[in-house]
Amino acid sequence: MNHQLQDSDFDQRVRASFARQAFMATLGARIVSVAPGDVVLELPFHQSLTQQHGFLHAGVLAALADNACGFAALSLMPPGAAVMSVEFKINLMAPAAGTLFRAAGRVIRAGRTLTVCSAEVIATNGDQQKVVAVMQATMMSVQGRSGLSD
Amino acid sequence: MNHQLQDSDFDQRVRASFARQAFMATLGARIVSVAPGDVVLELPFHQSLTQQHGFLHAGVLAALADNACGFAALSLMPPGAAVMSVEFKINLMAPAAGTLFRAAGRVIRAGRTLTVCSAEVIATNGDQQKVVAVMQATMMSVQGRSGLSD
Amino acid sequence: MNHQLQDSDFDQRVRASFARQAFMATLGARIVSVAPGDVVLELPFHQSLTQQHGFLHAGVLAALADNACGFAALSLMPPGAAVMSVEFKINLMAPAAGTLFRAAGRVIRAGRTLTVCSAEVIATNGDQQKVVAVMQATMMSVQGRSGLSD
Amino acid sequence: MNHQLQDSDFDQRVRASFARQAFMATLGARIVSVAPGDVVLELPFHQSLTQQHGFLHAGVLAALADNACGFAALSLMPPGAAVMSVEFKINLMAPAAGTLFRAAGRVIRAGRTLTVCSAEVIATNGDQQKVVAVMQATMMSVQGRSGLSD
Repeated sequence: MNHQLQDSDFDQRVRASFARQAFMATLGARIVSVAPGDVVLELPFHQSLTQQHGFLHAGVLAALADNACGFAALSLMPPGAAVMSVEFKINLMAPAAGTLFRAAGRVIRAGRTLTVCSAEVIATNGDQQKVVAVMQATMMSVQGRSGLSD
Repeated sequence: MNHQLQDSDFDQRVRASFARQAFMATLGARIVSVAPGDVVLELPFHQSLTQQHGFLHAGVLAALADNACGFAALSLMPPGAAVMSVEFKINLMAPAAGTLFRAAGRVIRAGRTLTVCSAEVIATNGDQQKVVAVMQATMMSVQGRSGLSD
Repeated sequence: MNHQLQDSDFDQRVRASFARQAFMATLGARIVSVAPGDVVLELPFHQSLTQQHGFLHAGVLAALADNACGFAALSLMPPGAAVMSVEFKINLMAPAAGTLFRAAGRVIRAGRTLTVCSAEVIATNGDQQKVVAVMQATMMSVQGRSGLSD
Repeated sequence: MNHQLQDSDFDQRVRASFARQAFMATLGARIVSVAPGDVVLELPFHQSLTQQHGFLHAGVLAALADNACGFAALSLMPPGAAVMSVEFKINLMAPAAGTLFRAAGRVIRAGRTLTVCSAEVIATNGDQQKVVAVMQATMMSVQGRSGLSD
């Protein structure tokens, strides 16, 4: 999709915002790529992130996909705007088994206030890749609220 | 609501399943109460769980609410069944500011295969309480799949 | 819940907006009650509204529940604001069999821009009542957009 | 995507099931195309389907998108299975203004019991096309339930 860029500094801005998220460090997540309206994050499997059957917890997939959506939305916002998640919906389609999990978020429609995004989470297991979750999310651009930015 | 109990051992079963979720220990979450179709979990605020503005990350709220829903569903399942999240949708209604976060999950309808649940996440800040998120979720009962239980 | 009223004329306003929705007449829907943050709508079963198995179509339940949410949100908005659906999620929990379908929508949180609502759809069949669907929705208050109100 | 076909008669089956949905006739909807895991439906604008601002009602978009998803799911199901909507979530991204509305549903993952789908609704206005809504949905395959098929 062809999105209109409002901040030429979007790449640095997304990376700086990501770096301020302590929870991403807790999960061991990192940025794979940033493009206007498209952000990819990834996470190696770790036992500390599992649910009762030994798979990655749905909440971890949700956090990663939510962030891929949120940063994809932020990449298209004007300088000074902060991004907040309004809501998201995730379908867990297969047990999250694998060694590496990658969430690709993209903007479907960027509005002045609300941005609609989708994300796919792909699990890598040896040389196999499988889409284990899909998300549809709404992000909000917040401007001029004291103390909030990016 | 008046739910039909299929496993009199539901309390011990939910607690044992929760204890096997490494991710809950990573988040510092614990069980507050277990009743048939109703499970309450809680989590103290910790800086390691925050997003870029210093609030609790939406993914943490989602993980807690998803689990409150999943264990509420499990409490009504027959012995030998495992619970898996099919999908969930969460609305983040206010910044997750507070010292303690409590997710109350309850079963709306328990079917043979699918169980529909809802959850509220309440933030405590001093003597104030605020609902910061609501979830609507679908859980699945999986039986006879090798290696999966509870 | 205790909501703050911004328009003392809310009852007449909701009814007038409902009356302008041609689709509600097409469905045969009517207003049961209007209170601040709470609106109940109903719909008699009609063969023209069915899906392939003879039950009420999920889209009809969604339209009714979406409207119950939207009008519940509108009841709390300031004069001059128009309500629009941002998104909704509905779980269809049982076949929509019955002679009368009632959707009760309520506001969970009314914000300046966004309002989060939930709705239940109850089917009446003889002297039995059954919750057949639940919705969680986000509504938006739009002000000063030419031509849009209520 | 490359889906496995379980019923070579899928095209006739989807069309016959669609023809039995009285609500689709009420809306004036028709099938544009049927392929394995991909179904496109369309609907001309009609004043009887509008909300209070004169746009197509969100419930109409939801019904069309839900059906595009449901029939896309049915196209991959084995003979004798019936499709039912478990849940869907729709984002309304722009006012549904236009003369023709087309919903394209596709299967993201077809499981034995549950099928995850997505849909886009595109409004045509003169020579302009705009995506006005996106849906993420869960469909269920029901087998051997008396009286239900397709």
